[in-house]
Amino acid sequence: MTTSTTPRLVLDGDAQDLLFRQARTPDRFTGEPVDDETVRAVHDLVRDGPTAFNQQPLRIFLLRSPESRERLAVHLSRGNREKTLRAPLTALLAVDKEFHRKLPELFPAFPGAADFYASDSALRKRSAVLNGALQAAYLIIGIRAAGLAAGPMSGFDEDGVDREFFPAGDLSALLVVNIGRPGQPAGRPRGPRLAHAEVCTTL
Amino acid sequence: MTTSTTPRLVLDGDAQDLLFRQARTPDRFTGEPVDDETVRAVHDLVRDGPTAFNQQPLRIFLLRSPESRERLAVHLSRGNREKTLRAPLTALLAVDKEFHRKLPELFPAFPGAADFYASDSALRKRSAVLNGALQAAYLIIGIRAAGLAAGPMSGFDEDGVDREFFPAGDLSALLVVNIGRPGQPAGRPRGPRLAHAEVCTTL
Repeated sequence: MTTSTTPRLVLDGDAQDLLFRQARTPDRFTGEPVDDETVRAVHDLVRDGPTAFNQQPLRIFLLRSPESRERLAVHLSRGNREKTLRAPLTALLAVDKEFHRKLPELFPAFPGAADFYASDSALRKRSAVLNGALQAAYLIIGIRAAGLAAGPMSGFDEDGVDREFFPAGDLSALLVVNIGRPGQPAGRPRGPRLAHAEVCTTL
Repeated sequence: MTTSTTPRLVLDGDAQDLLFRQARTPDRFTGEPVDDETVRAVHDLVRDGPTAFNQQPLRIFLLRSPESRERLAVHLSRGNREKTLRAPLTALLAVDKEFHRKLPELFPAFPGAADFYASDSALRKRSAVLNGALQAAYLIIGIRAAGLAAGPMSGFDEDGVDREFFPAGDLSALLVVNIGRPGQPAGRPRGPRLAHAEVCTTL
């Protein structure tokens, strides 16, 4: 199974394959359900991932009822609808733009952290999106760590989803992630990745 | 070493510890250098992480010269300066807001993808930040996969960094990440994490 290893990495080749090298973003899943205990185990692993001031803005809405899935589907771009309605589990990821209220509890080492954010809602939104996206990526890795596949999607009407699911205005939709075991037919081959020299520059 | 395992996860306990459960964000590092081959191995692992339309907006600037480190340090918040000047390696992460120019090559399955972004620079910025942050998290995981520790920081003057490093205006600074082996003294204990019920809601 191991496609590549390098002595520079400590992580063993099977784990490299599971999390990155063999993992793919599927359009179709098998019918096998994803139970709550699996979601709990994934969260228990990835909750330790770092965020600024330990702010942890990500919120996860597990759309298990057909009604909740339909409420989301109308706001998805057309190409994302059917695969979302058919996925064993769909997670709507959102960020808490009022995360600063929890900072006295989450980051007691810097009591001024909440005040730093309190007066600037645009700063809070930017920080929530940046750190929520870090957490979303940890979650994708965690889903793969459970032997499952993640299908992240940003193709949806954010304002429409926010109005439908978060009318109080404290949360903003970030990403939708379908979760399950990859089904048939498998999708297209993996797209090309940028070469090291196109990404990394030494200064 | 294994602090916790669960049969719901396929990833073995040592890898769980390496990437999440035992990994920490240090303020101090040992003097051991981080060489280019290690950075290359990390990138080779995490480049496979998914992004929307395979857009891969993240760019990594490895600040190896004292001059480049000083150019950054003046724009960092005070608490981030000394640890950055002393870190074995500092990576300035930025996103390419003109990523759409590469989409015909990176996502040939949807030839209209570049046009979708071409006329809307605000959309491109949002997409670059979201997907660049996903890639930044993959990179943090990859640094840990190499047995190293990552110190991500968003406490810096973004406009100042952009003017200093990216005067052409096509790139925006996203995150600064110090990289090395954790030094002494170790930092504060890990901050509290939100409980599963505070993060996950079933609909």
